[in-house]
Amino acid sequence: MNHGPIINPEKITTLPIGFRDILASRADAEAKMINVMMSIAISHGYIRVKPTLIEFENTLLKGPGAATSEKVFRLIDPISQRVIGLRADMTTQAARIASTTMIDAPRPVRLCYAGGVLHTTTNQLNPERELVQVGAEMIGNSTADADAEVILLAIELLRTVGVKWISVDIMIPALVPLLLADMQLPAEIFSVIRQAINQKDVATLKKLANSKSSILVGLLKIFGPYAEAMQDLEELDLPDKARDFLVRPAEVIKLITNFEPNLSVTVDPAESRGFEYHTGIAFSLFTRGGKNEIGRGGRYQSDEDPKSTATGFTIYLERVLQILPEDKQKPAVYIPYGTPHEQSKALRMRGQITVAGLTPVVDNYAEAKRMGCRSILLNGQTVALS
Amino acid sequence: MNHGPIINPEKITTLPIGFRDILASRADAEAKMINVMMSIAISHGYIRVKPTLIEFENTLLKGPGAATSEKVFRLIDPISQRVIGLRADMTTQAARIASTTMIDAPRPVRLCYAGGVLHTTTNQLNPERELVQVGAEMIGNSTADADAEVILLAIELLRTVGVKWISVDIMIPALVPLLLADMQLPAEIFSVIRQAINQKDVATLKKLANSKSSILVGLLKIFGPYAEAMQDLEELDLPDKARDFLVRPAEVIKLITNFEPNLSVTVDPAESRGFEYHTGIAFSLFTRGGKNEIGRGGRYQSDEDPKSTATGFTIYLERVLQILPEDKQKPAVYIPYGTPHEQSKALRMRGQITVAGLTPVVDNYAEAKRMGCRSILLNGQTVALS
Repeated sequence: MNHGPIINPEKITTLPIGFRDILASRADAEAKMINVMMSIAISHGYIRVKPTLIEFENTLLKGPGAATSEKVFRLIDPISQRVIGLRADMTTQAARIASTTMIDAPRPVRLCYAGGVLHTTTNQLNPERELVQVGAEMIGNSTADADAEVILLAIELLRTVGVKWISVDIMIPALVPLLLADMQLPAEIFSVIRQAINQKDVATLKKLANSKSSILVGLLKIFGPYAEAMQDLEELDLPDKARDFLVRPAEVIKLITNFEPNLSVTVDPAESRGFEYHTGIAFSLFTRGGKNEIGRGGRYQSDEDPKSTATGFTIYLERVLQILPEDKQKPAVYIPYGTPHEQSKALRMRGQITVAGLTPVVDNYAEAKRMGCRSILLNGQTVALS
Repeated sequence: MNHGPIINPEKITTLPIGFRDILASRADAEAKMINVMMSIAISHGYIRVKPTLIEFENTLLKGPGAATSEKVFRLIDPISQRVIGLRADMTTQAARIASTTMIDAPRPVRLCYAGGVLHTTTNQLNPERELVQVGAEMIGNSTADADAEVILLAIELLRTVGVKWISVDIMIPALVPLLLADMQLPAEIFSVIRQAINQKDVATLKKLANSKSSILVGLLKIFGPYAEAMQDLEELDLPDKARDFLVRPAEVIKLITNFEPNLSVTVDPAESRGFEYHTGIAFSLFTRGGKNEIGRGGRYQSDEDPKSTATGFTIYLERVLQILPEDKQKPAVYIPYGTPHEQSKALRMRGQITVAGLTPVVDNYAEAKRMGCRSILLNGQTVALS
């Protein structure tokens, strides 16, 4: 028996769907992981911010925040009598701080953050409604080097906490909308086509789209390792405007693979789900053993000012914790009642966990076992329990 | 100019009253302080828990939670269509976990936690509505040693993060209600007397109370350093039932002063404000330089089970941060565009903060200054900026 939480699964408190208490080594692992990630981002010049958990609805849904509207818990603030919301995403908050409080800070502004976010809705992919978001944003620099810096930073954060194998999937979310605009499709089939593209449904696409649909069909077939995918994209009969969209991904891929020659980088140029507010390249981070992305990011417009182009990423901490081996609860040493404080203090100074006995007992060994300890401190010596 | 947030006070986002973003070294200091405090509590066998930010109203307001009812933000959960609340206090949540999920864990259960709490209301003493609570609870042990353990733990946490001078004020919140019950006062003056006691208003007390008021008046005059105060209490003509209430404070004071002979310990036996749910001794922690308590705690009933007596404490992190010297923003080294990654990495490995240049510039010195850096990396050497 370990010193650790003895959980009675039948007695777990009824909490709203999507909420759960996090206990013991898991709670500790989460906190430690956040610290490590933040200290790395800080070492790269990112300034840590801790935005408020609650904001007025209008600031919370500004710019990139608009995409989170459906997920926001709203209520009336009894003091201001205005609608306030619990944040569903922190990217928007970092952008808000950069464009208000830190408007006079030199550009680019680099910010990092970690904190809880809350979602009203739950689905199969995201069963939890209380999540931890870890992220970084660089606001006010439009270069490929900026895009590459945030991708490499996300990878460094994940590697440092123990995610060994990482794959980066590069997307160009503005490409499909551009091609669709170019095709001048009738409004009534536009959304059906959009859906067919998202589902990579080539049959529907061929049936519905007009003569220019062959480009879309060709685009849908391109995804996979970057060298081949970028080559295929070059060979596709794209309009000139769309061709311009290939320059940045190529630059960024070159920068990140120069630095990380063995990194798995794939390209999925037609994918755009969930990247509706992204204006440049977007990326998802995957690892072996996890079906879902463990992080995502990309370039977006952080506010109305055209100079406020930003690039950043979000790491889904719950998913990272899921794929990493669980921390074992550290065994504890039982300290019989009356033991001099200095002796147990010395153990703690050496990194041990102590559990103090609060009353004299007849059998200290039995009491140590009852408390889930693995050893006992007797006459200044730690003795293992059989 | 430091590499740090350049804050424009005129541009700070409008947030609801009592909410503010926490930036840079302050955000970092807060996170570090939490870690240090949690790791100490864990070393004493306290199991870290991270309860949910939201619960159903009925579980949130159970037991000791009832006292937080006025502070709880409530809303309707769109999934369950039930009233949910944002936690205003985490003590209740620790008690809830101990009495449900961890009901089968050996007693005492020791839990520690750190997290945000939200209050609907604000007042002069508590202007913030989003606060960080750090605390520990021991559930299921009624001894004086348990009371002493949590007081000493609170002190150790505060000392370790840099609070040098600490004073513990011991209260007996159940004493005044017992004396009042004994006086059999008419219902209509009961609350006036209660208020007079809370305000140490001896004149009103003398005028209103009956013949037994002399005990109350005597009690009100007793507060200050423990040795004298405990002596004065012994000499007061208390009824026998009330005299029983003096045993535990005396035991606890003996235990903590044995361990900490130089600790400032005071006794304020008539004080009970904010300790309405406390059943045994209660305590407040003060330090020099801060008007308000920086922590508080005491013994309470954690649920309906009479065996669920608990003792614990809460530390108000914002107040601790206020009295400590502010962390200086660490200066950053500017890394000119094109510098080999290994060179900047080596600096970070040595604990430096680097800020990468993202484009070639004519004057690297000027750019480093513009970015708020204090030095620049040139040919593998860090050169201070004049």
